[in-house]
Amino acid sequence: MAAQASPAPELALPDVAAIRAAAARIAAHVVRTPMVRSDALDRLAGATLSWKCENLQPVGAFKARGACNAVFSLDEASAARGVATHSSGNHGAALAYAAQRRGIPAWVVMPENAPRAKQENVRRYGATIRFCAPNVPARETVCAAVLAETGARLIHPFDDVDVIAGQGTATLELLADDPTLEAVVAPCGGGGLLSGSAIAAHGVRATIRVYGTEPAEAGDAAAGFRAGHMMPAPTTHTIADGLRSGTSPRTFSALRAHVTDFATCSEAAIVRAMRLMWEHLRIVAEPSSAVPLACLLEGTLDLRGARAAVIVTGGNVDLDRLPWQA
Amino acid sequence: MAAQASPAPELALPDVAAIRAAAARIAAHVVRTPMVRSDALDRLAGATLSWKCENLQPVGAFKARGACNAVFSLDEASAARGVATHSSGNHGAALAYAAQRRGIPAWVVMPENAPRAKQENVRRYGATIRFCAPNVPARETVCAAVLAETGARLIHPFDDVDVIAGQGTATLELLADDPTLEAVVAPCGGGGLLSGSAIAAHGVRATIRVYGTEPAEAGDAAAGFRAGHMMPAPTTHTIADGLRSGTSPRTFSALRAHVTDFATCSEAAIVRAMRLMWEHLRIVAEPSSAVPLACLLEGTLDLRGARAAVIVTGGNVDLDRLPWQA
Repeated sequence: MAAQASPAPELALPDVAAIRAAAARIAAHVVRTPMVRSDALDRLAGATLSWKCENLQPVGAFKARGACNAVFSLDEASAARGVATHSSGNHGAALAYAAQRRGIPAWVVMPENAPRAKQENVRRYGATIRFCAPNVPARETVCAAVLAETGARLIHPFDDVDVIAGQGTATLELLADDPTLEAVVAPCGGGGLLSGSAIAAHGVRATIRVYGTEPAEAGDAAAGFRAGHMMPAPTTHTIADGLRSGTSPRTFSALRAHVTDFATCSEAAIVRAMRLMWEHLRIVAEPSSAVPLACLLEGTLDLRGARAAVIVTGGNVDLDRLPWQA
Repeated sequence: MAAQASPAPELALPDVAAIRAAAARIAAHVVRTPMVRSDALDRLAGATLSWKCENLQPVGAFKARGACNAVFSLDEASAARGVATHSSGNHGAALAYAAQRRGIPAWVVMPENAPRAKQENVRRYGATIRFCAPNVPARETVCAAVLAETGARLIHPFDDVDVIAGQGTATLELLADDPTLEAVVAPCGGGGLLSGSAIAAHGVRATIRVYGTEPAEAGDAAAGFRAGHMMPAPTTHTIADGLRSGTSPRTFSALRAHVTDFATCSEAAIVRAMRLMWEHLRIVAEPSSAVPLACLLEGTLDLRGARAAVIVTGGNVDLDRLPWQA
């Protein structure tokens, strides 16, 4: 990867030292999440799996890590003007949380149709929501207006070196908890978690396998990985609302360099996997969190015989409308 | 308590040394469960609460602790003949798990109408289920027949010194995790968890307050505590299926000696509390686990200003029939 020798700013990535620094910076603001196990899920996968419970983070998602690292990396003058983002939910809530922890204002641009639970997660931490029509041009227009009006710093959900470094801290923890792990598995939306995880894993041990997983309905990263260049997703019609984003050139370059392979899964498998996780892990996992298990169930991801950690990315779900109760 | 100076066998109780010994005995077989926090629940209760996630134990309940301590306390000859119990579910699954870990047979007598998920939890660990009519005489008849036929040792769900000692180990952990805790709260069914928790807490620090919580619909321990003698429950019509048992003379004597106070709650509050725990803690908690929060919501338990730990007892729920989706 020539980009690693002398990266253009839009391709800059954190190294493992930056991820270690992020871990120290955010330690007082995030949870060192537990790993849980299930013999029943191990039997289904034919592997020895540990589930890293990022659903137990503040705001219910790994996004607290990246947002806290970005917010606490700002100098005093920038921080005072506040932060802003556009987000389908978990990053918005995470940025609101991080800003509240630092005592600075936050603005979150969200589509009008964002789930109620995710709106409440943002408001709970004192951020201001600005709604937009549910399409990218509307989102960018409203976001630009907020930045112009407030002087806030945009904290992108994934295309940001400090956010990626923060997301990578989960993998430092899981490898410290179990140094015998042979593989790490994460879902891939914009690729912030997966690229941070992969850089962290290979910074600790070069032989660890790192797998990205996606809904087939939003399989841009998997398709791009096979093609050798970024690809647009043909659709983003997935229940896994955290994974509808495509990657950026920055995250895609990290994935090409560090990910062992990608797998994709059907929507039905996501619902089945989500229910199995609730039943056997006894945690509330959102659809995006179920994508790795869905790939294992469908056999597109084969970890047979391996010791692997799976990152359970979040637990924000509308409890009145569970997808297996259609 | 005269019983503590020279207890009759049916009133014998573990001391904190026995609970510490239990912790060492079961360490390889149970999870050192995490504590999670929620600012939203803290605001509702006006307290600083830590939630001890026993739903993340093997078999999804604290019962794994007591069952493992009882099974691994058996001498070789007794163990070889196996173990048996009657249980509405979680203790039965826990005994099956403990027996499987030791490599001995287990028989579980269950009512025919036990929830499917709880039946599967027993079978998963290789135990043999014997069904009985859903009443106490039928249960005792079938249980006696199993013991006569197999020579198995009866491991009672709560009226057992080793089981009580095992249940107390959760409180040793939570006090080690947060030595500043001022109070511990647990639900009370048969009283095994609550008596073990109270003995452990007061063995570590005599000033810790220990609260028992019950559904008003199965409020025998609360009523007995106020009356100063054991009372039968007027009804056991509660959604909290783990709390329908009354206490035994053994557990009641421990509760009288060590519990600070009891609180009770309505059925509606249990359902509301359960949903709030799923939403804000992002864990699957069964109705029995929601009784402490239900008491906080209704104000029958007042922890305002205190730092308290709440034991989340289990997470075995029929995910197709959630009680807030009537």
